Amino acid sequence: MTRPGTISAATREAFLALWDELDEIGIDPRGGVDRPAWGAADLELRAWFFREARRRDLTTEVDPNGNCWAWWDGPGPGAIVTGSHLDSVPNGGAFDGPLGVVSGLLAVDELRARRIVPRAPIAVVAFSDEEGSRFGLACVGSRLMTGALDPGRAVGLTDGAGVSLAEAMRQAGCSPEGLGTDRSRLDGVAAFVELHVEQGRALVDLDQPVGIASAIWPHGRWRCSFSGEANHAGTTRLEDRRDPMLPFAATVGAARAIAQRLGARSTFGRVLVEPNATNAIPQRLDAWLDARAADGATLEELVTGIEIAARLAGAEHGVEVTFRAESVTAELEFSGELRARIAAVLGGAPELPTAAGHDAGILGAVLPSAMLFVRNPSGVSHSPAEFATVDDCGAGIDALTRCLAELAQ
Amino acid sequence: MTRPGTISAATREAFLALWDELDEIGIDPRGGVDRPAWGAADLELRAWFFREARRRDLTTEVDPNGNCWAWWDGPGPGAIVTGSHLDSVPNGGAFDGPLGVVSGLLAVDELRARRIVPRAPIAVVAFSDEEGSRFGLACVGSRLMTGALDPGRAVGLTDGAGVSLAEAMRQAGCSPEGLGTDRSRLDGVAAFVELHVEQGRALVDLDQPVGIASAIWPHGRWRCSFSGEANHAGTTRLEDRRDPMLPFAATVGAARAIAQRLGARSTFGRVLVEPNATNAIPQRLDAWLDARAADGATLEELVTGIEIAARLAGAEHGVEVTFRAESVTAELEFSGELRARIAAVLGGAPELPTAAGHDAGILGAVLPSAMLFVRNPSGVSHSPAEFATVDDCGAGIDALTRCLAELAQ
Repeated sequence: MTRPGTISAATREAFLALWDELDEIGIDPRGGVDRPAWGAADLELRAWFFREARRRDLTTEVDPNGNCWAWWDGPGPGAIVTGSHLDSVPNGGAFDGPLGVVSGLLAVDELRARRIVPRAPIAVVAFSDEEGSRFGLACVGSRLMTGALDPGRAVGLTDGAGVSLAEAMRQAGCSPEGLGTDRSRLDGVAAFVELHVEQGRALVDLDQPVGIASAIWPHGRWRCSFSGEANHAGTTRLEDRRDPMLPFAATVGAARAIAQRLGARSTFGRVLVEPNATNAIPQRLDAWLDARAADGATLEELVTGIEIAARLAGAEHGVEVTFRAESVTAELEFSGELRARIAAVLGGAPELPTAAGHDAGILGAVLPSAMLFVRNPSGVSHSPAEFATVDDCGAGIDALTRCLAELAQ
Repeated sequence: MTRPGTISAATREAFLALWDELDEIGIDPRGGVDRPAWGAADLELRAWFFREARRRDLTTEVDPNGNCWAWWDGPGPGAIVTGSHLDSVPNGGAFDGPLGVVSGLLAVDELRARRIVPRAPIAVVAFSDEEGSRFGLACVGSRLMTGALDPGRAVGLTDGAGVSLAEAMRQAGCSPEGLGTDRSRLDGVAAFVELHVEQGRALVDLDQPVGIASAIWPHGRWRCSFSGEANHAGTTRLEDRRDPMLPFAATVGAARAIAQRLGARSTFGRVLVEPNATNAIPQRLDAWLDARAADGATLEELVTGIEIAARLAGAEHGVEVTFRAESVTAELEFSGELRARIAAVLGGAPELPTAAGHDAGILGAVLPSAMLFVRNPSGVSHSPAEFATVDDCGAGIDALTRCLAELAQ
């Protein structure tokens, strides 16, 4: 069998049962799920992960950065690791993250059902705080582990209620004392393969259930702050105003125009207004820019252009503008050798780049990493509309099983 | 004495003491005060009001619409009523509202100190929920009392946490059962005079401590909802997006341009984004338009122009736009007879129009009403920068005392 295929009836049943159970956790009343890192839903998901791992006689541990591990014949050197994350954006979809973790657990089942005895330890990992929707920084667990994020900065990240990451970890019974580069753990990993629902329409267009990632676009988040002067919406003459909403609006328009010209992507998805009252001119507006491009030079041109537009509009309205990078991730091309081995096993699976950041992108900077994508008929993600058919999820689990079998030989 | 003058040393001391006490209530950690209707600070202010009323041997009551009253020789017919409100916008100033209530109580002290015996009952009122910052509708207490707001609609208004006005009243120990037009109470009021800090620079420019309101501009609030499609900020091609942030930004720019052309005022001060995550294209954006103009026809031209701009921008981006008036208040010209009597008493006090809504504007639609403004050196309001000097507050109390003496003859 060299094409992505199917899984056993038992694994398919197990998939449906696991999915049913996950569906109940962290339901967002607005639709979809809301599972911020270290919140109640995230803790329930972590407990679920360990329960399922133990049910499979896997050895469980939480690493010093709060990532959850389940080992088959390990921990040990030369490990082949798979997995993804369990947290979600607010009002998000159920597949982004959990599909990779569930597929990792079920790939272990399939390897056993196929009587494949791996020569290397195999681990399933659930990385902590991948989405960054609570503390504003994505891939916190994998960044800390690889040294891409300074632990001193991490502990001070705060959520919308002012709770720091350190406090949130402590409240969850997890010590933040050991945060930081986990050299020995990284040294023990021979390869990491992350399975993820596709976040676009490429596999739909190609009529393929499973694809292989080629590269991750460079991308980042910038916090744009507009400081004006709060005043009465009725009594303040237009010429006396220093209204931060106006330069923000101009910046949104400019960001779209520049991204369009460069064939890049820019989004303002998060906005905080103070005091956010109908009859008060805002004092201050904070907006977060998400920007991505096919190469680093284009990304820089995009972000510089948006910053200039923001500063010009701010000056026009007497509004002070600050523009600060919160995280910037360089382009990552996944390991050519790993991609070649996986492509050989999954003959016919197409290669595609992605503009989304992933833990596999963070790990790919320090060790051989790869990604599998499972077709998403809606092409939509970070939304309740995101999904994958059971057949395609089965094809994904089969593909992952065969990758692990190949890599753990 | 025919010019705005001064108050006794005792009243000045009392003013400073009351102001000190109020300063401690509902402090906003971001600056200024935050006293949303029926919240903890508002309840503390209501208790403070009744304490100060009883200290003056005034008869206290809460009317069926939640407004607080303190009567000198009453309740009774032909009453002369003064007062304002105690709630504030978030991050707001300390004078907008409380100055009118404090001045009313101290005008009673001054009338007594001046041995003036009014022939009509005098009342000081603190209207409920004037700012509308919690439930989205301004002047709820006075609108309900005059029948300008349907009680069925009022009870269903909800705050940002989903708490209804009815629930908030009940939690504060106040029944919402009796909400609605309070005909007999209105019939008993001969005139209402509201003292308020000025919300612009007119009195600064005129070098006068106190002014008389001539009219309130027509004004209103419109809720503009932009419904698009949530999706991943990285993986979704620009041409596949239905991003509500883009038509909103275009509408903000158009609203400013149209207001400028018409000599009117428009503000977007409140915005809610869903899901409001950095790496998610928003599903939906709700923004509230505050619009004001010197006459009704101009206001209609302004709002219609903004709505058309919003719909055109929505169509361009595949975003559905709804545009709904939440409250619209027609132009109010204050009673000419009352203004003439007050102007005669306060010889030399200038008349000025205002673009801000007030309880006096709501009452002015059904009974003779007037307003006094006290100079605000910053010209700023709905902001911690709003203020009035102690001397000017004294001049305001003196002016109010003389108005009440005249009207209660």
